[in-house]
Parts: sequence; structure tokens; C-alpha cells
Amino acid sequence: MASEQPVRSLSEFAMIAKLFAPLAAKAPGAFALTDDAATLGLAADEELVVTVDALVESVHFLKADPPGAIAKKALRVNLSDLAAKGARPRGYLLALSLPSWIDDEWLTHFAAGLGEDQENYAIDLLGGDTTSTPGPLTLSITALGSVPSGKMVRRAGAMPGNRVFVSGTIGDAGAGLQLLTQQDNGISASDRASLIARYRLPEPRLALGRRLIGVATAAADVSDGLIADLGHIAETSKVRIVVDAARIPLSPALVNLWGRGGDAILRAATSGDDYEIAFVVPKGAANEIARAAKETGIPATEIGRVEAGDGVALIDESGAPISIARPGFTHF
Amino acid sequence: MASEQPVRSLSEFAMIAKLFAPLAAKAPGAFALTDDAATLGLAADEELVVTVDALVESVHFLKADPPGAIAKKALRVNLSDLAAKGARPRGYLLALSLPSWIDDEWLTHFAAGLGEDQENYAIDLLGGDTTSTPGPLTLSITALGSVPSGKMVRRAGAMPGNRVFVSGTIGDAGAGLQLLTQQDNGISASDRASLIARYRLPEPRLALGRRLIGVATAAADVSDGLIADLGHIAETSKVRIVVDAARIPLSPALVNLWGRGGDAILRAATSGDDYEIAFVVPKGAANEIARAAKETGIPATEIGRVEAGDGVALIDESGAPISIARPGFTHF
Repeated sequence: MASEQPVRSLSEFAMIAKLFAPLAAKAPGAFALTDDAATLGLAADEELVVTVDALVESVHFLKADPPGAIAKKALRVNLSDLAAKGARPRGYLLALSLPSWIDDEWLTHFAAGLGEDQENYAIDLLGGDTTSTPGPLTLSITALGSVPSGKMVRRAGAMPGNRVFVSGTIGDAGAGLQLLTQQDNGISASDRASLIARYRLPEPRLALGRRLIGVATAAADVSDGLIADLGHIAETSKVRIVVDAARIPLSPALVNLWGRGGDAILRAATSGDDYEIAFVVPKGAANEIARAAKETGIPATEIGRVEAGDGVALIDESGAPISIARPGFTHF
Repeated sequence: MASEQPVRSLSEFAMIAKLFAPLAAKAPGAFALTDDAATLGLAADEELVVTVDALVESVHFLKADPPGAIAKKALRVNLSDLAAKGARPRGYLLALSLPSWIDDEWLTHFAAGLGEDQENYAIDLLGGDTTSTPGPLTLSITALGSVPSGKMVRRAGAMPGNRVFVSGTIGDAGAGLQLLTQQDNGISASDRASLIARYRLPEPRLALGRRLIGVATAAADVSDGLIADLGHIAETSKVRIVVDAARIPLSPALVNLWGRGGDAILRAATSGDDYEIAFVVPKGAANEIARAAKETGIPATEIGRVEAGDGVALIDESGAPISIARPGFTHF
């Protein structure tokens, strides 16, 4: 930056035309962001799946975070919700409340981050709103997807006897957040970078999620924490979920940082921000899940089972319950 | 309030279950707000119309405003966008970033306001997100509606020779905002109350909007200001719009406050927040508009015409242009 002062030379309309309209260029229903609303058509046998998430500076990200990474994370946490529901992403809306310190350069990098992820996930900007704020940067993204009518994978639906799976590895994002506030932790630069990347840039598991349609009886994305999010499935499905602690998949980088003991597993299973999919399938579907994992390149690990009852139990290799003080993140 | 301290005793999940889930009870695709996403089905010949607006404390409303009124205004400004597009409201999503001063009582009144307007406008809550914020109360609403496929009334489409109409009266909300910051202004208590109500509680013109499908060549809701929003139509339609200043409809209360002179008209036409519909129809459609206005009980006044060219001209009764220093509100 040449100047000490933040410089936002672009007016609201110029900003939309220059930075955001190109992100809507491929969506005919976005009308180049020049209308009051956008349109989206669905096939006759499809229904809309819609979700919104708000992200607030200093709550969900730091002011100093790279703007492109903030943009991508905001988009990805929403896409992760669509992934867990088996939905195909169709478009998104962005509401942006900008403090005065946001300058043209920040906005340019923010829009560039969105553009890169639009390519990554085949989704276009459909519309949005920009306002000023005297407070922290706040953004909300509404993601729109589609599923075959009536086929969305819900949280309710898990049945006793079903098996519980989770995609990818758990705990990396929690470790990444820890690393951002600590300097010396005795792990390699590459482990450090990979864990921080998992915090900053979750990978919505869209390809795997779409394979769950018609197979999974229940699913949720892991945002609050594995135990907490399985708890949401248990509660809405009115079942008990039993998780084998030793089967929870941990990345090599996480093991290098936290080890493989009970404390590490408990921390991984409750730290949140993983944006993996926790899902439940009938006992006979394990082969189908293995095939979907192989074909999508997204690992899926069986970690437990569904029983009659309620709540989530984490058990050790002897079958004894591990006490969970705090199952996951709560916003307040 | 019995206590000096704000008291938010409800946890995030308890708040959602107690205050917000009842607002979603009639929408089967909301799954009682217990899932990651909501579903919405459309008829085979319909498409989705979607819009988002963010509102920020001290920018769009005041901290001391009644929480029910904040809720209603947030919902109504979005419904106004749907109205201007001819869409039927189908549901909405709410992203709420709550500062620590928000207490149970505030939230209860906020949810009650939403509930009242859900009844008024036949719309249900489909989903949302709640987060904490260290800054001002910030909320964004995504409104979902439907139109017959391909029939959304766009901003683009106005043609030379078309006539320009506006619903209701213009300037009342701007006057209401002025009155909120002034004590003594020599108008009656009822005029004062009616102008403030127009600022706090705009009336989305849904019934009239739906009558514009297949009739209007262009429409926009009046949020930035009549001249500014007609400017958006002129720009996207690549035409010139000429408005007869004397025909701009002013309410009796506004005339009592500002008079009927050129200054009053200019101020009314640029102050914004009206949430009326400005729309353009072929010359021969005036009778059809008169009938729609009568049947919906929403006045519609012809205020001007479309010509070849660009921009918006405001002319006096002699046909001379009135200079416009600032056509409407801009966010930054």
C-alpha cells in the first residue's frame, strides 16, 4: 500500500460493476447484478436446498487474514452444508458489511478469492448486498443447491444398527487455529502449513456428498465438532450414537503435533471447523461407501454405530466411555 | 427490565428452539430448523426469485428502535424486492449477528415481530444462522419467491414510448427519518406518527407487484430514492426517463410538513426508503394498471414517460429540467 490511509476509491456501484459483476457473468439469472433479485430454474424433478452462514471478523476470522482466504472460507463453509445434504451447488448470494478500513486492494483480493473458488466448485454469484458498518467486517453467504425432490440427506433418519462414517480427517482445523496463535511447537514447517491450511481453507466434500443421496440415512457437516454434530444427528434421529475413539481418523500432521493418545482424540473430536461430513448408512452399505470414497478420492472411515437411546458416547478400545466435558463449539 | 445488566440466558440452541423454530413450523422444508439446510419445491413452470439485504445497527436502524420493528423492516425491505419483481414470497432465511447487549427480552420481541409479519405476508422462516459479534447488531435476510418461469419483471425492458408509474406516495419515509431526529416541527401528532411509521414499517407492494407480471416492461423497488431507482431502470434498459415533478404523489402528511413546492418534491424524490414500486408499462396498459390499483387497494400514479437516450430528467410544469444534486442514497 502506497498510503497510510485505507483508500476505497470505488463507489458502491463501481465496486459491484468492476469486482462482483464478473463473478456473476456465467449465471444468466444474475442479470449481471443489475437487478433487484436473481432467478434460478430447477428441473421438474428437483428441489432447492438452501443454507446461510454469517462470518464476523474476530469471531470467525482475523482482520489480518488474507482477504482471498476469508472469501474462500465463507463460501466453503456454506458449500460444506450443501455437501452434507447431497446437494449440487447452483449459486450463492453475498451480503457484505464493510468497515471503513476495507480498501480497493482488499476488495480486489476478496473478489479474486471468490472467483478462484467459483472455478473450483462450479458455482456462480447470483446476487448480493453491500452496506457500510461501523463495526467488524461481517459477511453472510446464502448457498443454493439442488437435489432430486424429497431426497435431501437429512439429520433425522439414522436407525439403530446403522453404521457411522466420517470423511477425511478430524481435528486438523482446530490444530491449525492453535498454531496461528503459537510460534514454537516443534513440528515441521510443512505440517504447520498443512494444519493451518485446513483451518483457513476447508474442502467441502461435494463429490462424496452427492454419492450419499439414496444411501445415507442421515448426515451433517462437522462444523461445531465431531461429537457435537453427531449429537445433532442423534437428537433429531432420536437414537444413540457410539463412536470408537481409536477409529477417528487423524492426519499424520495432527499426530505429529498432538500425538495419538486419548487427549488428542478427544480434542480432535470436539474442536470443530473440520467441514468434513459425518454420515450414517445401513450396515450393508459399507461397500458402496468404500467405492464412493475411492471414486471421489475422498476418504471415508467407519467410526461407530447407531443404537437405540439418545446422545453420543465416545468409547475406548475396552468399550469404556470417555468423558466429554465440552462436545463442541457454541456461539454463545 | 428488572436488571441493569442485559441478560441472555438462552443458549444458542435453546434460543433457536424456543423463539425461531415456531416461525418455521408451517414450512415442511425447514425441518423445524434442526437440519443444515432447508428445501423448497417449485412447480414445474416456476422459477426461483432470490434476493438478500443486510441491515446494520446505526446504519439502517437505531439501537433503541423497537426490536419487533427492526425485524419487520428487515423482512419487508426484502419482500419489497420480491414485490417489484412480481414474485410470490415463498420463505426466508435469517442470519443474525448478535452483540452482547441483546437480551432474552429483545430476542423475544424480535421473533414476535417476525411472526406478525409472517402472518401479514404469508411467508415462513426456512432457516438461518446466529453468531455473536463484538460490533453492531447485523442481520441479513434472504428472501425466496417464485414467478412463472422467464416472467420476472426486470429492470431492463423499458422502451421509448412506455409510461412510468409509481405506487403509493413518495418521500414519507425520508420525512419520518427527519422527524425521528427533530422534536418541534409544527405538524400534528397523527401526521408525525404516520410519517415515522412509513420509515419504520414500509409496506411491500406484493399484491400490485404480482399484477405487473406480463404487463410491466420494467420495475424496481424505490429504496435508494425515486430518481436513483428510476436511474437504475434507465441505465439497464438503455433509455431516458422523464418524470413530471408535479405528478409525483405526495401524502397529505408530507405536504403538511414540507409543503408542495419544488424543494419538497425534489427532497421526496431523492430521500429513499419508500419501498414503493416504480414501474414502466406500454402506453396502452394504463387502464390495466388502474384496474390492478383498484383491485389491490394500492394506488398507482403515472408520473412520466420513457424516451430514447439515457438518464433521468425531472421536469417542472413548463417542461424545464429541475437540477438534481443527489439522486438518492448511496451506501458509501
